[in-house]
Amino acid sequence: MSSMSRSAVEDLETKEMDAKSLSSSQSQSRYVHKVGIPPRQNLFKEFKSTVKETFFADDPLRSFKDQTRSRKFILGIQAIFPVLDWARGYNLTKFRGDLIAGLTIASLCIPQDIGYSKLANLPPQYGLYSSFVPPLIYAAMGSSRDIAIGPVAVVSLLLGTLLQNEIDPHTHPTEYLRLAFTATFFAGITQATLGVFRLGFLIDFLSHAAIVGFMGGAAITIALQQLKGFLGIKKFTKKTDIVSVMHSVFSSAHHGWNWQTIVIGASFLGFLLFAKFIGKKNRKFFWVPAIAPLISVVLSTFFVYITRADKRGVEIVRHIEKGINPSSVKEIYFTGDLLGKGFRIGIVAGMIALTEAIAIGRTFASMKDYQLDGNREMVALGAMNVVGSMTSCYVATGSFSRSAVNFMAGCQTAVSNVVMSCVVFLTLEFITPLFKYTPNAILSAIIIAAVINLIDYQAAILIWKIDKFDFVACMGAFLGVVFSSVEIGLLIAVSISFAKILLQVTRPRTAILGNIPSSTVYRNIQQYPEATKVPGVLIVRVDSAIYFSNSSYVKERILRWLMDEEEQVKENYQTKIQFLIVEMSPVTDIDTSGIHAFEELYRTLQKREVQLVLANPGPVVIDKLHTSSFATLIGEDNIFLTVADAIAYCSPKLAREP
Amino acid sequence: MSSMSRSAVEDLETKEMDAKSLSSSQSQSRYVHKVGIPPRQNLFKEFKSTVKETFFADDPLRSFKDQTRSRKFILGIQAIFPVLDWARGYNLTKFRGDLIAGLTIASLCIPQDIGYSKLANLPPQYGLYSSFVPPLIYAAMGSSRDIAIGPVAVVSLLLGTLLQNEIDPHTHPTEYLRLAFTATFFAGITQATLGVFRLGFLIDFLSHAAIVGFMGGAAITIALQQLKGFLGIKKFTKKTDIVSVMHSVFSSAHHGWNWQTIVIGASFLGFLLFAKFIGKKNRKFFWVPAIAPLISVVLSTFFVYITRADKRGVEIVRHIEKGINPSSVKEIYFTGDLLGKGFRIGIVAGMIALTEAIAIGRTFASMKDYQLDGNREMVALGAMNVVGSMTSCYVATGSFSRSAVNFMAGCQTAVSNVVMSCVVFLTLEFITPLFKYTPNAILSAIIIAAVINLIDYQAAILIWKIDKFDFVACMGAFLGVVFSSVEIGLLIAVSISFAKILLQVTRPRTAILGNIPSSTVYRNIQQYPEATKVPGVLIVRVDSAIYFSNSSYVKERILRWLMDEEEQVKENYQTKIQFLIVEMSPVTDIDTSGIHAFEELYRTLQKREVQLVLANPGPVVIDKLHTSSFATLIGEDNIFLTVADAIAYCSPKLAREP
Repeated sequence: MSSMSRSAVEDLETKEMDAKSLSSSQSQSRYVHKVGIPPRQNLFKEFKSTVKETFFADDPLRSFKDQTRSRKFILGIQAIFPVLDWARGYNLTKFRGDLIAGLTIASLCIPQDIGYSKLANLPPQYGLYSSFVPPLIYAAMGSSRDIAIGPVAVVSLLLGTLLQNEIDPHTHPTEYLRLAFTATFFAGITQATLGVFRLGFLIDFLSHAAIVGFMGGAAITIALQQLKGFLGIKKFTKKTDIVSVMHSVFSSAHHGWNWQTIVIGASFLGFLLFAKFIGKKNRKFFWVPAIAPLISVVLSTFFVYITRADKRGVEIVRHIEKGINPSSVKEIYFTGDLLGKGFRIGIVAGMIALTEAIAIGRTFASMKDYQLDGNREMVALGAMNVVGSMTSCYVATGSFSRSAVNFMAGCQTAVSNVVMSCVVFLTLEFITPLFKYTPNAILSAIIIAAVINLIDYQAAILIWKIDKFDFVACMGAFLGVVFSSVEIGLLIAVSISFAKILLQVTRPRTAILGNIPSSTVYRNIQQYPEATKVPGVLIVRVDSAIYFSNSSYVKERILRWLMDEEEQVKENYQTKIQFLIVEMSPVTDIDTSGIHAFEELYRTLQKREVQLVLANPGPVVIDKLHTSSFATLIGEDNIFLTVADAIAYCSPKLAREP
Repeated sequence: MSSMSRSAVEDLETKEMDAKSLSSSQSQSRYVHKVGIPPRQNLFKEFKSTVKETFFADDPLRSFKDQTRSRKFILGIQAIFPVLDWARGYNLTKFRGDLIAGLTIASLCIPQDIGYSKLANLPPQYGLYSSFVPPLIYAAMGSSRDIAIGPVAVVSLLLGTLLQNEIDPHTHPTEYLRLAFTATFFAGITQATLGVFRLGFLIDFLSHAAIVGFMGGAAITIALQQLKGFLGIKKFTKKTDIVSVMHSVFSSAHHGWNWQTIVIGASFLGFLLFAKFIGKKNRKFFWVPAIAPLISVVLSTFFVYITRADKRGVEIVRHIEKGINPSSVKEIYFTGDLLGKGFRIGIVAGMIALTEAIAIGRTFASMKDYQLDGNREMVALGAMNVVGSMTSCYVATGSFSRSAVNFMAGCQTAVSNVVMSCVVFLTLEFITPLFKYTPNAILSAIIIAAVINLIDYQAAILIWKIDKFDFVACMGAFLGVVFSSVEIGLLIAVSISFAKILLQVTRPRTAILGNIPSSTVYRNIQQYPEATKVPGVLIVRVDSAIYFSNSSYVKERILRWLMDEEEQVKENYQTKIQFLIVEMSPVTDIDTSGIHAFEELYRTLQKREVQLVLANPGPVVIDKLHTSSFATLIGEDNIFLTVADAIAYCSPKLAREP
């Protein structure tokens, strides 16, 4: 197809055979393929396919194709409420699994909820509220079968810190609560919006490494915060950085610590950690660490009630409101100064909650091999938080620890969340008064035991081994959270992640290729030391799309390779470089700046009497090279399908020249 | 080298022969190369090479290698003041070229300077000042031989708009002037800082397309602003958007226009455009448009002086301060509220000025084939503006139009700038009083004639043809400037450029490969319709480094290719897909998220009874696959040098299975 002109592209099909025979007669002894120009698409089609690949990469309307209208309607309803789809296949065997799993996660979530709501500076019942309504909504709308919904430690801490920056929870409890609902509302709106507009890929910008660091830092911060309850300190700093907290702890060492509290806390923490150890040792006993917290609560409450240790300074929960979630529709700020603040906090908390839930969903989906639609999942999570914000809940999401327990307890569907929700309902209706004598120290111990799992030092080690830059992001987020605050840590994590992307697009790799002995394969000579350079020819591979952000770098880098090579050649009295072959396989796209850079490169090479030759430009690139008439400038017969073809063309020419 | 373990890498050289014989005995009939693991670098070396490639890609210390200490010192001084290097080879022939070019650009710059200073809301002499000191500094420190330094239209407009947002130039002229110097000072500091810290690549983030749109929009805005002087309107809007300006123009149509002004302006604009036309028609007459502005000024001034048209409402320049630049060191705000404002404005103006100067420098450097060190150039421009801010100059940079004239007039070195500077000096010392009767309309006509060149509609058409997304950036910037303001246009340009980068890294291309008949080459079947798929095998190529930003997309996209393929296979009763070959050539890097995605992919494929096979992973990738022990997970013998090798391995296995 060598001589195929632009105008001839339309009747590609018919002329193909002629073109082939033409090119084969032109070529050297063997049959040389020329670079194909893809059939030209019209503008609308091109635009449509780009939009589809960007926003609808998962082809969400796939199942709607070729269906009747009524069937489409049913499918549409099912898309929003997957429960309608899977509920029909639901049976008793599945229910057995879900029941056991639901009871297990309920026993784990009740003490955790009470503790986590403290991290968010909210009264204990709000944690329980958030484990009642959101799981029900999720069960109807979500598509993950293993996720356990409810308040989580990191989001609670983040929300608490951000809210506290705006309103003091102790002096203005009502406004604080209202702002919390406002933030929850907008967190839900943010999540649902991202899902509806299919912008789910935005959360991919927080890298795995940054999340590992952020979670680890948050875990340590949360654990440190628990020292207040654990040591029975009354005056405690509001800041979350390690320096302030440690200062607070040690300055109160002489008069602020309560030994009874420490004894209770320490002994039950020991018990919890031992239960965890057993669970890890033998997977059969996964239920031991799952029910240990509830056992601790029951035992310690009973103990305090009997001994009346609360009169000796052991802080107790005192009061949890009885009854289920009251409506909070009217509490949300829809006007005024606090609307903006709630909106901002909601976006941040919503994004972090989303990141956690999607990560969990994906992990378990790949373990059980089912597909999870990220965007649809976001809509479900968003709807759940919007409804939650109207029923006195704060931001709920998927919990790492409880989801793992859910999975190991053999959950089959989201019904396990419904079971958990029912247990929480019963708790709220009947049992809350019994929590009166639960010591705060036990809640602290439960939280410490829970968040320890978030410190994934093995992942950090692996990151160090694999990618040093990732490790910097990980440590940056970690140290930012520990030494400053969750927001700063988050900011560092996002900034480093972005810096990495920018670095990647500005400084793409390039490589010098050599021929692998007794083959027609050309590879990076750094990776394959046995590969040999072809005399008189320099082969450079550019490892990235060439865009405005890197075009001048790429041009200058190629010229520098050439200059280095020419120096070497001179020193060793070898054949002068006469051809520069640019292997374009990895160059998936080029823009106007890139074409300009290539034009400049071509002109500079002309002055140095070096011929520019291109090998294997992709469909998009070859199209643009033709449109910009750069292909005509360098000569269409200087564009080849493979490096081997290009070499076969250059080598004989070399011999003829001096 | 198939069985080469990590520990054996050190004695690669000695064992190579054994390994080769070993692998050849394992392989099929022909000799199969295995993927090489590059020699391991230590951490410090790796870090050093990354930093070098990122910040010192141009190897600035190259010439310092293997030199004595005193020689290094001289080279260091020469690096800062290139004049010391090239001045020794300077001769009379070169001076002849520089003298003619210098006189030509001087005749062009004097009327332009006076007009441009109006765009910046500054008295006319400040434009001339900025053409006196900065060119001298640049001549000593800069390395471009063709650039013509001085005030330019776009930067003047930008600076004027930004400054005017902070201080009214008519009610507070002194503060306005001081803020202008402050902004100029920080513009210089910004430019020098970017150069010293080798962050020059940051300006690459403004894409070519965005610049074309921004410049075009700015040109139209500037031309519209000239309607004030051109029509002799007294009350004119301060806004720069087309709607406000047109409203201003037409609302004053009945009583505000001055017909004498219009006659003078229109006739000389006709003359200037005709001169431009002649210059374009025949390159020999390049000097005609170059001296036409000065001729217009002389003629019109004389005409007004004779007819005393200024008494009939023709606005004249009136007064230009005589004498050279006074010191303005004490005028710069180093404290107070205005320091911050000046700093912010300086950064924006400095970046835009830099973008223009570097683009010009690069263009002419590639035309005359000499190297231009972008970072060193930034230091020179920065120093020039810092000194300028202390000698009553505002932001100067390289001018597109004057640089082109300079080039065509045969300039040889930066001495042409010195010549221009001398002419401006003489003008300031002796001729400024003669400008008293110069009509403002003539200055407007000169500016309109100058900025017309900035509207590069041909470039816009080319951009449309090559890349539609680039065109959106171009038009966004253009419309933003025209319909809103220069800042908004700039913001749009930068945002769209960034969005493109983000899109590029989140949604990399993937392609299905097929075998090109009678070859061992595998290519995109969309580009090469004659390429045939291999039954039972799906070959996917991923066209980008796999990072956190795209890892889950890549994984899901590959799975979707597989599902589509499996459906097709089922319909046509073909061999079931049993191998998925991922061609990794374009995958230049992978991070922890990427490895995780591959692990998930592998597990999903296992469940579907499809074997994952990798072809040609690059040096960085293969190293990380080993470190993360993913290579062990999928089996090292499932990693091949080429797709052809992988197929050769898979095909016989296929036959054996049902």
